[in-house]
Amino acid sequence: MKNKIFFETSPLEAETKTALFEAIKKEKEEIGYYNLPEQNIDDILSYVESFDETIENIVVLGIGGSSLGSKAIYEFLKPMKTPKRKLYFFESTDPLNIVDTLKDIDIAKSHFLVISKSGGTVETISIFKYIFAPNPEKENYTFITDEGSNLDKFAQDLDSRIFYLPPNVGGRFSVLSVVGLLPLALCGIDIKALLKGAAAVSKSFFEQGDMHQVLLDKALYYAKNHTRYNINCLFAYSETLKYFTEWYVQLWGESLGKRQRHSAFNVGVTPIGLIGPKDQHSFLQLIMEGKRNKSVTFIKLREFEHELYIPSVTLPHLESLDILNNIAFHELITMQCDSVIEALKDQKEIPLDEIVIDSVNEESIGSLMYYYELLTSMVGELMDVNTYDQPGVEAGKIILKKKLASLAKSR
Amino acid sequence: MKNKIFFETSPLEAETKTALFEAIKKEKEEIGYYNLPEQNIDDILSYVESFDETIENIVVLGIGGSSLGSKAIYEFLKPMKTPKRKLYFFESTDPLNIVDTLKDIDIAKSHFLVISKSGGTVETISIFKYIFAPNPEKENYTFITDEGSNLDKFAQDLDSRIFYLPPNVGGRFSVLSVVGLLPLALCGIDIKALLKGAAAVSKSFFEQGDMHQVLLDKALYYAKNHTRYNINCLFAYSETLKYFTEWYVQLWGESLGKRQRHSAFNVGVTPIGLIGPKDQHSFLQLIMEGKRNKSVTFIKLREFEHELYIPSVTLPHLESLDILNNIAFHELITMQCDSVIEALKDQKEIPLDEIVIDSVNEESIGSLMYYYELLTSMVGELMDVNTYDQPGVEAGKIILKKKLASLAKSR
Repeated sequence: MKNKIFFETSPLEAETKTALFEAIKKEKEEIGYYNLPEQNIDDILSYVESFDETIENIVVLGIGGSSLGSKAIYEFLKPMKTPKRKLYFFESTDPLNIVDTLKDIDIAKSHFLVISKSGGTVETISIFKYIFAPNPEKENYTFITDEGSNLDKFAQDLDSRIFYLPPNVGGRFSVLSVVGLLPLALCGIDIKALLKGAAAVSKSFFEQGDMHQVLLDKALYYAKNHTRYNINCLFAYSETLKYFTEWYVQLWGESLGKRQRHSAFNVGVTPIGLIGPKDQHSFLQLIMEGKRNKSVTFIKLREFEHELYIPSVTLPHLESLDILNNIAFHELITMQCDSVIEALKDQKEIPLDEIVIDSVNEESIGSLMYYYELLTSMVGELMDVNTYDQPGVEAGKIILKKKLASLAKSR
Repeated sequence: MKNKIFFETSPLEAETKTALFEAIKKEKEEIGYYNLPEQNIDDILSYVESFDETIENIVVLGIGGSSLGSKAIYEFLKPMKTPKRKLYFFESTDPLNIVDTLKDIDIAKSHFLVISKSGGTVETISIFKYIFAPNPEKENYTFITDEGSNLDKFAQDLDSRIFYLPPNVGGRFSVLSVVGLLPLALCGIDIKALLKGAAAVSKSFFEQGDMHQVLLDKALYYAKNHTRYNINCLFAYSETLKYFTEWYVQLWGESLGKRQRHSAFNVGVTPIGLIGPKDQHSFLQLIMEGKRNKSVTFIKLREFEHELYIPSVTLPHLESLDILNNIAFHELITMQCDSVIEALKDQKEIPLDEIVIDSVNEESIGSLMYYYELLTSMVGELMDVNTYDQPGVEAGKIILKKKLASLAKSR
């Protein structure tokens, strides 16, 4: 992948950048996700190899960091390669959604992955109870959780297979751990290539290759200007990246939306996921003429596998659109992206950059995800927040548990 | 539907509110969408009644305002009632997406609705050419466009059926016109009930019922505080509203992201669509602890059709979650929403309100959409922008056409 920045970066801040690089290298010794590209995956591969061939559906019971990453990769690759098994997700307590998803699944041909880092996620456990009560066979379930969690103890009693999250890997940084790798590998996705893509970005950054300077420059600019450019738009010109943008929204929003460690302030950069050219007809007006509080990153694909041409037909009265004739759709979509970038450059006050990934394959998405994880860590470090916690979501959980307890009492 | 505001509204601004109401009443005489709930739909109904019964798929070729509205309604209702015909959308020039969608469709059992207000939308016409070249039979297509557009002239020459957009109805305000009604009616959706829901909100607002004061208060607050609260989050607690949030993003973003009429400033309120409880595990942290630049509207369903209960099983080591036992999922999701609202209220600096719609049916979604259209018009009026144009998207289109023309020349 390549990343090209169109805004002006400061040549003066070498010291800040050196300090940032040192801080990230130090984090790499503590924070687990950095080292996932080099992990040993033999366990996962041998589990997948011996997996029941009659199983057609892999069903993830998980929410947030337990589902967004594998969904992003699965949906990215799906149009290009037919998965070996279908991947489903139960992520909501919405009864309509539960009924609707169950309609699609033959339980006898399905295996359930129950994924909860803490082991006590209300959504996951409530749906698990609903499915487990009439289907209590231990071989239908595999559990992924933190070692020693209550879910771990439950799964041990049940004598089901359990995988543990590696230490110090937060949910939203867990896609390249067993949390993402296991469901994806079961669906026939090449997880080695995925890690290879991530490793390439890691190497390039830490060994001061192409990715080094551009990541430092971008992180520094975003962090320095976080009060002005408090919205970051990711504008991806491929429908395949739709769920990737949802993964990015969690990663970015939950990591950077915090009280600063050493100040009284609430800070954050709001993530927005957009898909082109569709969102040219929805969100682009706001970027072009709205408040100047948005930075925009465009993502383009270098290669599309499908050679689909617009046929050379002249439609009476629509002759002005004959300029479309004989153009390949992949040329058109790339030109659409370039045209929007050009138009936005003329606006001058909107910080733009462009990422080009090779094609729809495992390596590309592995690179892209690791790139965004690194960028998030770097911006978080400079913004003086704890990138890896999420204390703000606890209050609602406590209130919910009180409500549930008082309802249980009253019945 | 009910709307309850949790932030403090000013009792002092009666004059501004009166002026706003007068301005909106005046707009109603010019701007077409206001009067759509009372339109005559006999044409559409008789067309649908005589429609070929062997057609199983309705395929919309349209983008932005030509697709987001019907998609939102179709996807909202789909889990509750099996559609008479399936609705598909070609909204992208992404070749992977085109190939992927074509896989699902038997052309012989499909009818294509070509929707373009201007008649010259690049995405729509390029995909139309791709489909029309090998399938040039006029009876396979129905056209929806502005009277007198080039697409109108083309369709007349072809001798296909044409429907016209009513005058002064912009794309993003067109869902309750033939643009939304025709595809939905062909799929068996009760469009009379849809309009009835919209009419109820219209009546309530214009005849000073329940909706009158709350809409004035909310619009005034949003407009007055648009520089501070420059992000509006719509947090809907039902998976069925996922595409509704995408419709809202276009409506809000493209209408309000503008240069002010009488100032030099770029203004706008950035729309964010969220779905609960899923996005509690993604975006909530940013709302709770991030920068105080977001207002949040929660949408709840009063009734869920499905009575799905969490079974009364005790899972060893997970006994603390027995408080979930015997709870219905619809109770749980409502309590989750209420708990988040309570937690956010404790933060004090976040303007909150809550909309409750009755259930997943046509009237509810009709009400909700008209409510949001009204609110958008009112906020736009107060923010001194032209709510109904989108001049910012032209620059990119012009650059694209130049690129295409020069490529055509070079070949």
